[in-house]
Amino acid sequence: MFRFHLLPLRLIPLSRCYSSRKTLDFPPLSFSNTKIRSQMGAYSTAPETSKLLFRQLFEKESSTYTYLLADLGHPEKPALLVDPVDKSVERDLSLIKDLGLQLIYAINTHVHADHVTGTGLIKGRILGVKSIISKASNSKADILVEAGDKIWFGNLFLEVRSTPGHTLGCVTFVTGDGPDQPQPRMAFTGDALLIRGCGRTDFQGGSSDELYKSVHSQIFTLPKDTLVYPAHDYKGFTVSTVGEEILYNPRLTKDEESFKTIMENLNLPYPKMMDVAVPANMICGLQDLTGK
Amino acid sequence: MFRFHLLPLRLIPLSRCYSSRKTLDFPPLSFSNTKIRSQMGAYSTAPETSKLLFRQLFEKESSTYTYLLADLGHPEKPALLVDPVDKSVERDLSLIKDLGLQLIYAINTHVHADHVTGTGLIKGRILGVKSIISKASNSKADILVEAGDKIWFGNLFLEVRSTPGHTLGCVTFVTGDGPDQPQPRMAFTGDALLIRGCGRTDFQGGSSDELYKSVHSQIFTLPKDTLVYPAHDYKGFTVSTVGEEILYNPRLTKDEESFKTIMENLNLPYPKMMDVAVPANMICGLQDLTGK
Repeated sequence: MFRFHLLPLRLIPLSRCYSSRKTLDFPPLSFSNTKIRSQMGAYSTAPETSKLLFRQLFEKESSTYTYLLADLGHPEKPALLVDPVDKSVERDLSLIKDLGLQLIYAINTHVHADHVTGTGLIKGRILGVKSIISKASNSKADILVEAGDKIWFGNLFLEVRSTPGHTLGCVTFVTGDGPDQPQPRMAFTGDALLIRGCGRTDFQGGSSDELYKSVHSQIFTLPKDTLVYPAHDYKGFTVSTVGEEILYNPRLTKDEESFKTIMENLNLPYPKMMDVAVPANMICGLQDLTGK
Repeated sequence: MFRFHLLPLRLIPLSRCYSSRKTLDFPPLSFSNTKIRSQMGAYSTAPETSKLLFRQLFEKESSTYTYLLADLGHPEKPALLVDPVDKSVERDLSLIKDLGLQLIYAINTHVHADHVTGTGLIKGRILGVKSIISKASNSKADILVEAGDKIWFGNLFLEVRSTPGHTLGCVTFVTGDGPDQPQPRMAFTGDALLIRGCGRTDFQGGSSDELYKSVHSQIFTLPKDTLVYPAHDYKGFTVSTVGEEILYNPRLTKDEESFKTIMENLNLPYPKMMDVAVPANMICGLQDLTGK
């Protein structure tokens, strides 16, 4: 289990920045939530302690959302990227530099078929950044996570939930539950749950059975005000909530049999990037560095 | 001055939902800010009183951002759209319906040259929606606003700031200042200030002199944590802050002469939509209805 990071500039104390399955080994400092200040760019939970900076970033060609999260309350400002895209790495790293953050993780919700992850390029640019993907994805990465794992960045964490169905190894990352974690919670659902939609289930170990169970058991059971941040949107939506999707998702509001019928009759074309993207993403984009 | 709205279903009390230059005539209810709850989808300022719902929406072809704001704390859930796009009207109205909001205003930051506003189509679809644009734009709309005006929706309001330079009539809408208004403030800057950029100044009464003064006097003077929400982004950024743009905007961090030199040498092509969009937007897109 990975427990230690060499940051680009400084060392982050072991007790503050790590990903651990046994979270009680190195519990983050716990703070009384004396005052909560609403902020779009930076969620503030316990001022002077944990303070989430959050940015949503869009890659237009594949309609992919990348998410930047950091704990501004921690002296090192440790940050992570969820689902970075190779074509947007310069933009992402420029923003991280402007904001004075220390990127420690590049995380993928799953092995994408529609774009190449930026993870490999990022690792080549910033020493010490660790790649994270699910163990169930059967991919290579510095850290392989499973359901129940917590990915800590400063005094904030993402909880790993297993949400297979679009692919075999899909996971959803959910911000922590607790008085020192942001409220409402935020779910980074990858392609499991999209806004008013969901990912296809006809390749990469996909299964409409599994996807239905995953969304209903792992996402729809979150508090209704949980913010849903998917890996893609094709209509220009940026966010939804669990409550909204429970009511209005045109596929997942159906019963399981109807859902399966819908998914089996989508007749979608073969993804044009698939033959390039999947092998690249199985090793977290690291092949991109071999030609350099 | 417009003071009264027929809503699609119900009448909103005069004292709650209106746009007025003399805001003291009908002050909104003022509430003690007993507890603030952070929320991306819905800013909560004074629970059970004003509570901002906020959604950012993207139109891919013109890379335009539309913003939906509503006061969920008000029984009527009055809402407004900033810079709606004709091609996304169905999406926007569907979301408004799902969220149970009452759209009362469709507002434009300026006469756009790159897309046709959705205002006219929306007015044709929802009875009682009023169009708003600046008086300085020399355009037709139900309500013409000037610097200092407040646009109320429920117990929340947008303050109008005059920010000419991209066009003669550009304004920036800023969420209210006060204990019962969302914190941090949010500035809808249109094309005056973009994320790490700004609008061009070579047509529609544009002036680099004016734009420089506008941004420095009307936007950069806002609190540094004010969230910057532009009308466009071409790189996939969704939000910035005043503090970030003061430090990192590659054009507006320059002195005025350098800024003018940059703006005079952009050599941008003639906007492909301009000859269609500008005449349409001068009447808030209402011409779209004549053919129906």
